[in-house]
Amino acid sequence: MNTNMKSPLVSVGVIGGSGYTGLELLRVLRGHDGVNVQFATSDSAARRPTPIPGLAFVPVAEARLEDVELVFLCIPHGEAAVWVERNGASVRRVIDLTTDHRPGSGREAGAVYGLPEVTPQEVAEATLVANPGCYPTGVILSLLPLLRVGLVDASVPIVVSAASGVTGAGRSPKRELLFAEVAGDFRPYGLGNDHRHLSEMRATLPGLQLLFVPHLLPVARGILETIALTVEPGVDAARVKTVWRDAYDGCDAVRVEDHAPALAEVVGTDVLALAAFDNVGLEVSTLTLVAALDNLGKGAAGQAVQNMNLMLGFESGRGIRC
Amino acid sequence: MNTNMKSPLVSVGVIGGSGYTGLELLRVLRGHDGVNVQFATSDSAARRPTPIPGLAFVPVAEARLEDVELVFLCIPHGEAAVWVERNGASVRRVIDLTTDHRPGSGREAGAVYGLPEVTPQEVAEATLVANPGCYPTGVILSLLPLLRVGLVDASVPIVVSAASGVTGAGRSPKRELLFAEVAGDFRPYGLGNDHRHLSEMRATLPGLQLLFVPHLLPVARGILETIALTVEPGVDAARVKTVWRDAYDGCDAVRVEDHAPALAEVVGTDVLALAAFDNVGLEVSTLTLVAALDNLGKGAAGQAVQNMNLMLGFESGRGIRC
Amino acid sequence: MNTNMKSPLVSVGVIGGSGYTGLELLRVLRGHDGVNVQFATSDSAARRPTPIPGLAFVPVAEARLEDVELVFLCIPHGEAAVWVERNGASVRRVIDLTTDHRPGSGREAGAVYGLPEVTPQEVAEATLVANPGCYPTGVILSLLPLLRVGLVDASVPIVVSAASGVTGAGRSPKRELLFAEVAGDFRPYGLGNDHRHLSEMRATLPGLQLLFVPHLLPVARGILETIALTVEPGVDAARVKTVWRDAYDGCDAVRVEDHAPALAEVVGTDVLALAAFDNVGLEVSTLTLVAALDNLGKGAAGQAVQNMNLMLGFESGRGIRC
Amino acid sequence: MNTNMKSPLVSVGVIGGSGYTGLELLRVLRGHDGVNVQFATSDSAARRPTPIPGLAFVPVAEARLEDVELVFLCIPHGEAAVWVERNGASVRRVIDLTTDHRPGSGREAGAVYGLPEVTPQEVAEATLVANPGCYPTGVILSLLPLLRVGLVDASVPIVVSAASGVTGAGRSPKRELLFAEVAGDFRPYGLGNDHRHLSEMRATLPGLQLLFVPHLLPVARGILETIALTVEPGVDAARVKTVWRDAYDGCDAVRVEDHAPALAEVVGTDVLALAAFDNVGLEVSTLTLVAALDNLGKGAAGQAVQNMNLMLGFESGRGIRC
Repeated sequence: MNTNMKSPLVSVGVIGGSGYTGLELLRVLRGHDGVNVQFATSDSAARRPTPIPGLAFVPVAEARLEDVELVFLCIPHGEAAVWVERNGASVRRVIDLTTDHRPGSGREAGAVYGLPEVTPQEVAEATLVANPGCYPTGVILSLLPLLRVGLVDASVPIVVSAASGVTGAGRSPKRELLFAEVAGDFRPYGLGNDHRHLSEMRATLPGLQLLFVPHLLPVARGILETIALTVEPGVDAARVKTVWRDAYDGCDAVRVEDHAPALAEVVGTDVLALAAFDNVGLEVSTLTLVAALDNLGKGAAGQAVQNMNLMLGFESGRGIRC
Repeated sequence: MNTNMKSPLVSVGVIGGSGYTGLELLRVLRGHDGVNVQFATSDSAARRPTPIPGLAFVPVAEARLEDVELVFLCIPHGEAAVWVERNGASVRRVIDLTTDHRPGSGREAGAVYGLPEVTPQEVAEATLVANPGCYPTGVILSLLPLLRVGLVDASVPIVVSAASGVTGAGRSPKRELLFAEVAGDFRPYGLGNDHRHLSEMRATLPGLQLLFVPHLLPVARGILETIALTVEPGVDAARVKTVWRDAYDGCDAVRVEDHAPALAEVVGTDVLALAAFDNVGLEVSTLTLVAALDNLGKGAAGQAVQNMNLMLGFESGRGIRC
Repeated sequence: MNTNMKSPLVSVGVIGGSGYTGLELLRVLRGHDGVNVQFATSDSAARRPTPIPGLAFVPVAEARLEDVELVFLCIPHGEAAVWVERNGASVRRVIDLTTDHRPGSGREAGAVYGLPEVTPQEVAEATLVANPGCYPTGVILSLLPLLRVGLVDASVPIVVSAASGVTGAGRSPKRELLFAEVAGDFRPYGLGNDHRHLSEMRATLPGLQLLFVPHLLPVARGILETIALTVEPGVDAARVKTVWRDAYDGCDAVRVEDHAPALAEVVGTDVLALAAFDNVGLEVSTLTLVAALDNLGKGAAGQAVQNMNLMLGFESGRGIRC
Repeated sequence: MNTNMKSPLVSVGVIGGSGYTGLELLRVLRGHDGVNVQFATSDSAARRPTPIPGLAFVPVAEARLEDVELVFLCIPHGEAAVWVERNGASVRRVIDLTTDHRPGSGREAGAVYGLPEVTPQEVAEATLVANPGCYPTGVILSLLPLLRVGLVDASVPIVVSAASGVTGAGRSPKRELLFAEVAGDFRPYGLGNDHRHLSEMRATLPGLQLLFVPHLLPVARGILETIALTVEPGVDAARVKTVWRDAYDGCDAVRVEDHAPALAEVVGTDVLALAAFDNVGLEVSTLTLVAALDNLGKGAAGQAVQNMNLMLGFESGRGIRC
C-alpha cells in the first residue's frame, strides 16, 4: 500500500495459497505495509496470478524457505505436521493454520496456541504457532475471560449453537458443497457433540461442559455463534460486557457491541463482534452470548496476521481489516 | 386432482390470500380433492389470478361468507380478532392462521388450539381453530410427548436455537427483508427471551423453562430448530424416538428420522421431521433434538389443511404434501 | 396419486436416477397416474430411497429391462449411445435424455427428436427418442413456428442471451460449481459461439444464423433466454404471439404470455413460457422474445414424460406440472 | 490509510449517505488518503455511525456546505436537480450521482458528463459533474473507442444483454426486491427498449442502434453486459482489444482481459473488465463483447471518486480499489 516507511519490508511466504484460507491470507497481506510476500505455493494453480499484484503461484518445490522470516501453512489438515517435521530446520518461524498443532491434537507440544489477545507474549517469542480454528476462536474469546473471573456456572452444560458459511469446509469439490445442494438449505452436522474442534475448545476452557451444535449456512463465509451460558447468581449481561471490555481493551480485532451482531457486519473483516443479553422468564440465570466473525478473517487469515505481527515485532493490529 | 369421488366437494374460502401464507394455502388446497375454493380475497391483488386455475382474487367486500363451510384467515396479526368479532355470526367454521386466538394471546377462550396430532377430537368439533405458529409447531411437537411421559428435567433451561427463512416475516416490504440486506447474512433476533411466540409455547408446555433464540436465515422458507434438552437420568435418544413414534403413529405429517434432517428435505412439504441425538462429553444427560419443517407448510398452510380435514370430516392427512 | 382408473399401470424404468435429471424425472413420474416405475438404477446410491415411496435405487446390473415398456436414460452424456448399442435389443422403447442421439450428434439416425408439440406423431411411433436439450427447447420452440411462416429475416444474426441455473451442469462435484464459487457470481461461458448445444439448434432451425451466449446463474434451476430477432418488415410482437398461439393451441406445456415471464414462474413446472415485445428506437424491425423454462422440467424430465405419454398412448400432457 | 503526506487533506461532503450508493462512496473515501469527509447526511439514519470511523450521519440541514471543496449528491433521482438549483451558489464543486444532469436528461447543460478515461480535462475543470449510470458505463466504455476508430457497422442493431444485482434498484423497500421474491429468480425488465438509461447511452454513442435488454440478478451487486456487435469486415476481437488497450493505457479502472470476466472478479472493486470474442458459424462479422463492473464501484462510487480526483488535482486512480 505505501512504501515510504523507513524500515525495510520483512519477507514472508505462504505454503498452500490457493484454497480459501490461503487466498484470504494473501489478500490480508496485500494490505499490510510491513511485509513482502516472497512466495505463495500451489501445485494446482502454479504460474497463475495470486491476489498480490506481480506475484504468481509457484510449485511448492520452488519455495525458497531460507529467504523468508516466517512461513504460513495453509495446506490440508494432517499435512502440516509432516511439513514441519521435514522442513522445520530450514525455517525461522511458522504459523500453522491447520488443526495439526492445536491443543487436543496430540502434537501441541512445542507449539504456542496463537491467541493474540490472550497470550501475546508467548506468541511473540514462539517459533511455531498453532493458529486457532474458526469455531473455537469465537467460543474461547467469549468464554475465557468470564471463566477466569469466575462468572460461569460450570455445573450446567453451555450450549453453543454455531453456524458457518461453506468456505469453512474448504475448496475441494464435494457433492454436498455444490451450489444446488447448499442454496436454500440449512442443516446441523456433527451431532452427538464430537466435532473435531471440541478438543481444541475443551483444552483451552478446562472444566466447562460444552455442548457444541454446528450448522452449515447457505452463505460463502462467516460464523455466528449463540451461546446459552448459565452464570453465577447475580451476574448479568452488563457485567459480562464489562469483563470483556477490560480483557480486550485496546484490541482492534475484538469488539463488544450493545446490539446483536449480524454476520454481514463482520464478513470481510478481521474482527470478532461480541454481545451479551439477559433473558427473562427463566428461573436459572442463563445469558445469551453472541459471537460473530468471518471464518476466513478473524477465524483464520486475520488472526494469523495478528500472530505474525507479534512474532515479527509489529503492532498486533497492523494491516488487519476493522 | 381427480374428481371421480362420489361425494360432492365442500366449499371453503380464504380471507387474505396474497401474502406468503395465503398463497401457500391456495397451493395446498389446489391439490386437495375434497374441497372447492369458493373465493380468495385480496384488495391489493384483486382480479389477478390465484394459484388455483380459474380463480381470481376478489376484494374482501365480495367474499360471500354464507356460501362456504369454512373460512381461513390469512390476514395480518391483530386483524383476525376484529374479523371474527364482526363476521363470526355469518360463518360456520373459522381457521385463524394469525396469532390472535392462540394460547397466551389473551383471546384464546372459545378457540381450539389446532394441533391435529395432539387434539384431533377437539379440533374436529371446533368452530374456531387457532392454527399454531411456525416456531411453536416444531418446539411443541418435539417436547410435548416427552413432557407427558416424564422424560424432561424441568429444572434446567431448554435451549431452543431456531432459524427461519424470510417468508416467516411476511410479505410487507421492509428494508431489513430486502434481498441485498439478507443475502449472505445470518442474524439472531428477539434476544432476551421475549419473542412473541414464547407465550404460545409456554402455555402449551407448562412447567418448562424455555430459552428461545431465533435467527433469520438467508433462505426463502423453512425452519430448523436444534433443542438442547436435559433429560432424567437414563433417558437416551433411542427412548425419545420411541416415545415420538408412539405418539405420532399413523400421522403422515410428523416423521421421526434417524439422521439429522436438513431444511431442504422438508421445504415444499407439510411434514415435520424430528430427530434426537445422544451427546458425549457431558456430565449431565443432555440430548440434542432437531426439528425441521417448512414454515409455510406444516408451520402454517399444511397444518391449517390438516385442521380443516378434521373439521370437515376428512382424514387428517388428506391433500397434504409428504 | 389415484389408482381407481380401470386400465392397468404401464411399467417403466429409469437408468441413472440419482443425478439432478434422474431425480426430477422420478418426481414427475411419482405424480403420473398411468405408469409404475419398476426400477431406478444408481450404483452410487444403491439401496437408498428414491423420490418414489417404496422404491429404492438398485445397481444398474439389477435392472430387469424386459419387465418394462419403456426405459429412460439419465446417464452421463456419451454413455447413452453405448448403452443403446448393448441393450437396444432387450428394450421396447427408449427415451434418451443425453445429447447422444440428438440432431447434430452424428448418431441421430434411427432416433426421433422428441418435440411433443412439433412432431407428436413421429414421437408416438418411435422406439428411440432423443429428448431435446434444455437450452435448445426454449430456442427451438420460440423460433420454429416463426421460421415456418416466414417471419424471420435470416440475413441478420439472431442473438440468444441465455442463462441457466447450475443443475444444468450436472451433479458431479467440480470446483467451479461449489456454493462459495457460484453465490454472488454470474458469468458468460462458451464464448465464441461453439456451445455443444448449437449443433442441435442449427440442425432444427436450418438457415438461421444463431449467436448463442450462455451464462451461469446463481440459482439451482431454471433457464431464461432473451432473443433479439430481426423480422421481416411489418411483423410485430402481436403477430408473433398469434403464430405461437396457433402452433401451441391445446398444448399444456407451452404458454404464451403478455408479460415478461420470470424464472420463478416456471421453476418446478414443466411449462415453457413465451413472450414477445416490440422495440422502439431501432431502424430495423428487431423484436425481443423471452423464453423461460425449468431446465429440469420442460428442459428435461417434463418433456421426457410428454414424450413417454405419446409413446405409450396417453395424452401428451398427462402428469406434467402446469 | 497513511497520513504522512505533506499536503493537507481536502474536505468533501456527502449528501444522502445511507443508501447503497452513499454507503459505498463513504467506504471508498475511507480508503482515500487525500480527502477528509467533513459530513455525510441522512435524515433517516441521523446520529448513527457511517462507514468512516468517528463520523456519524447528520440531518441534511446540518451540512455546512461552505466548509467543503466538493459535494457528492447521492439522493434519489429527481432531487438532485432541485438541490443544485437551491444550493449551487453555496458549493464550489458538485458530483451528482443521480440521473438528473446526465446526457439525455434535458438538464445536461452546464454539467460535464464524468467519464474520467474519456474526458479527463473537461472533468478537471468542471464545477458540476454528472456521474455516469452503472449500465451506461459498461456500454459506453466498451463501444466508444470502437466507434471513434470506425470499427462498428452501425446499420445493424447492437444487442446489449445486461444483468444487474439488486442494489442497482436502490434501498427503498419494495415488494419485488424482497429476498423471498428475488432469491432463485431471474427476470428481464424494461422490455421494449425504453429503459431510462438508454437516452444517456444514445447521447454518448450517436448513430448506433442500441437494443438494451436489462435483467435483475439474484445477487446484491455487480453488472455483467454481453454485447453482440456487428463490425466492419475484417475486424476481429484482437483488433478490438488493441483499440481498447490504446484507449485505456495507464487507466487503473479499466482492464482488458483475455478471458471472459465474471461478476465475482469485479464485485468490491472500482474496475471495469472488458473482453472480446470472435464467433464462429455466422455469415456476418459479429463479435461478442463482455463488460463486467460493480454497479456500486466503477458504476457509481468508484467512478465518482475518479472524477473527484480529477476535479481536486489528484491522480485519477488515487484511492480506488483495483
